[in-house]
Amino acid sequence: MSREGDGTTDGNEKYGRKPFKRSKSHFADRITADGADGWPVEAGRYRLVISRACPWASRAAISRRLLGLEDALSLAVTDPLQDARSWRFTLDPGGKDPVLGIRYLHEAYDAREKDYPGGVSVPAVVDVPSGRLVTNDFQQMTLDLATEWSGLHRPGAPDLYPEALREEMHEVMEGVYRDLNNGVYRAGFATGQKEYEAAYSDVFRRLGLLSERLADRRYLVGESITEADIRLFTTLVRFDAVYHGHFKCNRHKLVEDPVLWAYARDLYQTPGFGDTVDFDHIKRHYYEVHTGVNPTGIVPCGPDLSAWTSPHHREQLGGRPFGDGTPPGPVPAGEEVPAGHRP
Amino acid sequence: MSREGDGTTDGNEKYGRKPFKRSKSHFADRITADGADGWPVEAGRYRLVISRACPWASRAAISRRLLGLEDALSLAVTDPLQDARSWRFTLDPGGKDPVLGIRYLHEAYDAREKDYPGGVSVPAVVDVPSGRLVTNDFQQMTLDLATEWSGLHRPGAPDLYPEALREEMHEVMEGVYRDLNNGVYRAGFATGQKEYEAAYSDVFRRLGLLSERLADRRYLVGESITEADIRLFTTLVRFDAVYHGHFKCNRHKLVEDPVLWAYARDLYQTPGFGDTVDFDHIKRHYYEVHTGVNPTGIVPCGPDLSAWTSPHHREQLGGRPFGDGTPPGPVPAGEEVPAGHRP
Repeated sequence: MSREGDGTTDGNEKYGRKPFKRSKSHFADRITADGADGWPVEAGRYRLVISRACPWASRAAISRRLLGLEDALSLAVTDPLQDARSWRFTLDPGGKDPVLGIRYLHEAYDAREKDYPGGVSVPAVVDVPSGRLVTNDFQQMTLDLATEWSGLHRPGAPDLYPEALREEMHEVMEGVYRDLNNGVYRAGFATGQKEYEAAYSDVFRRLGLLSERLADRRYLVGESITEADIRLFTTLVRFDAVYHGHFKCNRHKLVEDPVLWAYARDLYQTPGFGDTVDFDHIKRHYYEVHTGVNPTGIVPCGPDLSAWTSPHHREQLGGRPFGDGTPPGPVPAGEEVPAGHRP
Repeated sequence: MSREGDGTTDGNEKYGRKPFKRSKSHFADRITADGADGWPVEAGRYRLVISRACPWASRAAISRRLLGLEDALSLAVTDPLQDARSWRFTLDPGGKDPVLGIRYLHEAYDAREKDYPGGVSVPAVVDVPSGRLVTNDFQQMTLDLATEWSGLHRPGAPDLYPEALREEMHEVMEGVYRDLNNGVYRAGFATGQKEYEAAYSDVFRRLGLLSERLADRRYLVGESITEADIRLFTTLVRFDAVYHGHFKCNRHKLVEDPVLWAYARDLYQTPGFGDTVDFDHIKRHYYEVHTGVNPTGIVPCGPDLSAWTSPHHREQLGGRPFGDGTPPGPVPAGEEVPAGHRP
């Protein structure tokens, strides 16, 4: 849900003097097996638009990989730097998304609702035939990929949202969202000391609880990877690179917490997680776009990322990463994160 | 040499688009045993003005403690936050330094040279009877405390500038100054990516060399504490608190380098070092004053400082901290760093 232009954004310095508050997704149609909202699941019909910088969009990128939806749901990756018209396809030849034929994601928003006054955010799913935005509801999107899209999952796809675990998952995910996924933004976009300190305190209280929880269990809920792990991972993988310094979440780095650091490395090294992570996009987006936090736009050279690929020894805790399933295959050609953008 | 108003300052956002360049000290009279410059060493005659935020001023605070010059050379501590008229005595009752009777350090500069157009910097030594600034030459000041002031040293004071080691000391100190003491400022005040990256590279190359050097020797030069250790310490003690995040020197934290982290703790726990360090002043100064780097003025809650007092085990390397001398006594009453400002 990296968006801008709505006054509560992480897209630019339009956040004002009020406490940071994340907007709700405006377009919440669901793509379902039965097509109840008018958008039936269909191979090749939709395009997932992400920024690799954005933690909310990265959830969808990981789910898509784990579930083997690459052939069914194509992927557009925006430039990590928005301009005044927001997310754009400047990484593509001619500055146009080759499938949608548009230069800016806002064109798909416009096609859906002319002159929509809200922000343009990723992740977004666009209906290819009509060019219209279907949904930018980052909270529901991945749950639907895990369930409604099951007819198109690869053989051996894991169950990322097991019915028996949903209650526990939502309890965990709610705390993670409030204190951590969104907590780091509340800290980083705070305009007053008190507001910042409250968010900082939430972030590190939650990290402490998670560190305890994960000390003797490999994954957050159950014995296998679930949506809950994906949602925690996308914040942890950005922690030392941007949240620690840029957002002042600096009680300690992720690498200083042996449990969470090993947990994050374990996931990073699991196919479908690390192969979606572009540290260059992450760092450039946060440090160059948020001029209200970093007016020089200078992007730090650190941190040293080499240890992301070091042994984590979490397999000693047991667990079955993919449950009864199997790891996903290699990243499709053309979707690889460039070598210089990863450890 | 924390100063402002000279266009190359760390005092405010007056640094421009040119590469950061530290100004030379303008007032370079020396206080000597023979009084050759008109300023003879004399107990009770001079007042040392420091900010506990400032690494350059902190050198003098540490030297004064190690040498036991507290009775001979009194100490004024400025507010960590300058205003438009620079360093001020707002921490003192009535906002006036009780000995000099002035509100701003610039009054002592004015008494020395009317309408001096340069910056006001600490450390500064002021002649109490005339109220005139004698010197703000931070490079020479501590060398003179170690040598010219020897007649007033406490019994058991260490030799911080041993003749036999001076050549080696200056070679070490020169690299430390260029790449580290001043290198972190070049990184933090860089206005362009290339300038920043060059400084970052200097900082971490030098830290690497120092880490190797200190792996099997307790102190930088010789077997005992010298001026060279003081000059390295004042940067290391600020590293994780301000330089890592605020100045983007974020390849890794000091705590991630086992050798330098133990070395810094060893010194911190040595009487005369840690008892001069005020982390509250350090953090508030950098984060609140440099609005060009941190426009919100929010001061991070981190890092966790508790490990500064943890065992360092460096005594296993041998060395004789004070040579043939002894550690200094307790901090004089009234000069203690407040409990909330230290780990």
